[in-house]
Amino acid sequence: MEKVDVISVGMTKFGKHPDKTGRDLVLEAFLETIKNVDKGINIKKEIKALFVGDFTPTLYEHQAHYGPLVTEWLGIQGIPAFRTESACASSSAALAAGYFAVASGMYDVVMVVGVEKMTTLDTSRTTDALSVAADDIFDLNTGITFPGLFALMAQEYFHKYGGNWEDLQTITIKNHYNGSLNPKAQFQESISSIARKTALKKGVSFKDDMDFLNSQFNPLVAYPLRLYDCAPISDGAAIAFLSNSKISKRFTDKPMHIIGFGMGTDTLALANRHDLTTSVAVINSVQSAYKMAGIWPEKIDIAQLHDCFSINEILLSEEVGFFKKGCGLAAAKEGRTSLNGDKPINTDGGLKSKGHPVGATGIAMMHEIWLQLRGEAGKRQIKQVPKIGLTCNVGGSSASSFVFILEI
Amino acid sequence: MEKVDVISVGMTKFGKHPDKTGRDLVLEAFLETIKNVDKGINIKKEIKALFVGDFTPTLYEHQAHYGPLVTEWLGIQGIPAFRTESACASSSAALAAGYFAVASGMYDVVMVVGVEKMTTLDTSRTTDALSVAADDIFDLNTGITFPGLFALMAQEYFHKYGGNWEDLQTITIKNHYNGSLNPKAQFQESISSIARKTALKKGVSFKDDMDFLNSQFNPLVAYPLRLYDCAPISDGAAIAFLSNSKISKRFTDKPMHIIGFGMGTDTLALANRHDLTTSVAVINSVQSAYKMAGIWPEKIDIAQLHDCFSINEILLSEEVGFFKKGCGLAAAKEGRTSLNGDKPINTDGGLKSKGHPVGATGIAMMHEIWLQLRGEAGKRQIKQVPKIGLTCNVGGSSASSFVFILEI
Repeated sequence: MEKVDVISVGMTKFGKHPDKTGRDLVLEAFLETIKNVDKGINIKKEIKALFVGDFTPTLYEHQAHYGPLVTEWLGIQGIPAFRTESACASSSAALAAGYFAVASGMYDVVMVVGVEKMTTLDTSRTTDALSVAADDIFDLNTGITFPGLFALMAQEYFHKYGGNWEDLQTITIKNHYNGSLNPKAQFQESISSIARKTALKKGVSFKDDMDFLNSQFNPLVAYPLRLYDCAPISDGAAIAFLSNSKISKRFTDKPMHIIGFGMGTDTLALANRHDLTTSVAVINSVQSAYKMAGIWPEKIDIAQLHDCFSINEILLSEEVGFFKKGCGLAAAKEGRTSLNGDKPINTDGGLKSKGHPVGATGIAMMHEIWLQLRGEAGKRQIKQVPKIGLTCNVGGSSASSFVFILEI
Repeated sequence: MEKVDVISVGMTKFGKHPDKTGRDLVLEAFLETIKNVDKGINIKKEIKALFVGDFTPTLYEHQAHYGPLVTEWLGIQGIPAFRTESACASSSAALAAGYFAVASGMYDVVMVVGVEKMTTLDTSRTTDALSVAADDIFDLNTGITFPGLFALMAQEYFHKYGGNWEDLQTITIKNHYNGSLNPKAQFQESISSIARKTALKKGVSFKDDMDFLNSQFNPLVAYPLRLYDCAPISDGAAIAFLSNSKISKRFTDKPMHIIGFGMGTDTLALANRHDLTTSVAVINSVQSAYKMAGIWPEKIDIAQLHDCFSINEILLSEEVGFFKKGCGLAAAKEGRTSLNGDKPINTDGGLKSKGHPVGATGIAMMHEIWLQLRGEAGKRQIKQVPKIGLTCNVGGSSASSFVFILEI
């Protein structure tokens, strides 16, 4: 099995891009990814195949068949390409396909693309488009959509392990703060700043962040989750170039090694789970990745965990082994997952603040690990430059999960 | 690079299945694939990952995230899984992902699924669902749909190399004859039989097959293509188990070796091609596959080529190197691609007669090669049992292409 490195990453700013189609976003990320190859790269000569993660372009853009679409648009038509889909983990599935392809020895260098252009639809049609990540027969027929599915997880977590909605706000406040330091984030604003602006605009006053988060400006979506517990709708693209380790040094002296990889599934229907606070998909993916890397959670210096809803960052922080089951909420409240904590999580603002263009999210997580491990994350750089990072990107209600462990 | 074998295949009958969802079709194919493992298999112990090709379940079934859907439905939840999409070649993309995964050494045995449940929509919505395989901006904005795109190819072919619609009927008549011998085919009827029944029902008479195909019962769809030049709308599923060659013998004494594989792309937009009678995607995939196999077209005893429209079987029979450019139509008329010709093509009836549940087609092609190479194809078995077979499965207007060369 060949070893595989990440030799460059790039991404667009996440957010609303009314002037750009999905393919335009991919082009923008592509140009940045080329620029980020330390020693340069001859694209037409080196890139041997392309894998595109994109969740529902069919509904958002009336467009599938994104493989040849992207190769044509980037001027590299001819090379092998196909699309992967695993709901919100679609680009981690593309990373997996690219990883297998390089690990097999079939191709030396491949490009992996993640993209989603979501702001073409109104809110109700977007909710519908996202809902196809759940089980149409057993989940959606009950009338539930994603905020409801994760709200059920939050309720069971509180019931089993204690804690309440107020505790969860640690995640919202932390991730908005981290996002305020990230020029690529959709919301580059702390909750304090949002509260201050809202106060000025509406002629009200807030005692503190919690007072704002408890107000009418943070309405209930699905009990106990409120608006600021939910990741936004976003447009964006992210790209990674993967290379056989044998030749990575041709492109950079600091390749990022994929030392662990795992994927797994759980029941698609939440109704069929025995315990809503855990996911077999996540457990299996995490265990496979640790086993391959030959390391344990103590060795991980930084992680990007799929906070589509605030509760999920807590659940995943326990599943990846950072904290014991039921202890994630307390650990977050103690600041252990903050930028300067011992287990920094979602240093780029997470899905909540950086944005969540579904198909681009998995690669964007890898993008942040890349910056942090290189010490190039700017204002949000962890002071003691981390050595090993982990991404955990899940699809739907954690029915699929993909984990990468990365080291420079 | 590990060598990879096919150790079993299975499929549903293709056609209308009003009583079955996509997942039901997958289950049916799964049970057959297990049964077809010569020495038996312990599924829960052996199957390490799953890849599902499915084109537009989002539109047909309001369902994506087919990876965990299938693992749950088959009772093997937990294992790694994701979906692949490359339009009508979606399950060949899944075969490619599975091939890489096994070739890398990551997994010893994987399952590859192809499925499409299409008959949920009426004809106009089905045409729309299929259209997302073309370029929404540069193709569809002109008002064209798939019969029109392939009609343009036919027109350019006739213009450049001669021939006309009458010549093309060789393909329709041949594939319906082959399909009449295939119990899994959607239309198990020769054109002569269809003509005879139509004559009885409508109180008309036909001199011969051509007289029927020239009648009002074969209406024009997009000049020069008529109804019987077009593959039908179908429901169906097909499955293949892939194994590392080192352990294939545990499952069968007659594993089918994947000795050649290639994939490629061309421009998604037909408008951007220099020549509508050729596809860079097909050429690149064919050349890669032959190069890997170290053999040439002369060595191929049987092929399944993507006849979504009659003209495409001709185009592909030239691209895979069986006949010189412009000579495919004449070769078909001479009977060289018939069951007892020297280059039998689409012995199972092809997409035209066997049916074309888009996401299942790539694996169904491999299913036919499996039967023929084992001498188990029943009434349509090629008399001198073939040794080497080839599949060429394309997406959309041949904007993506996947080729496998198989040997027992």
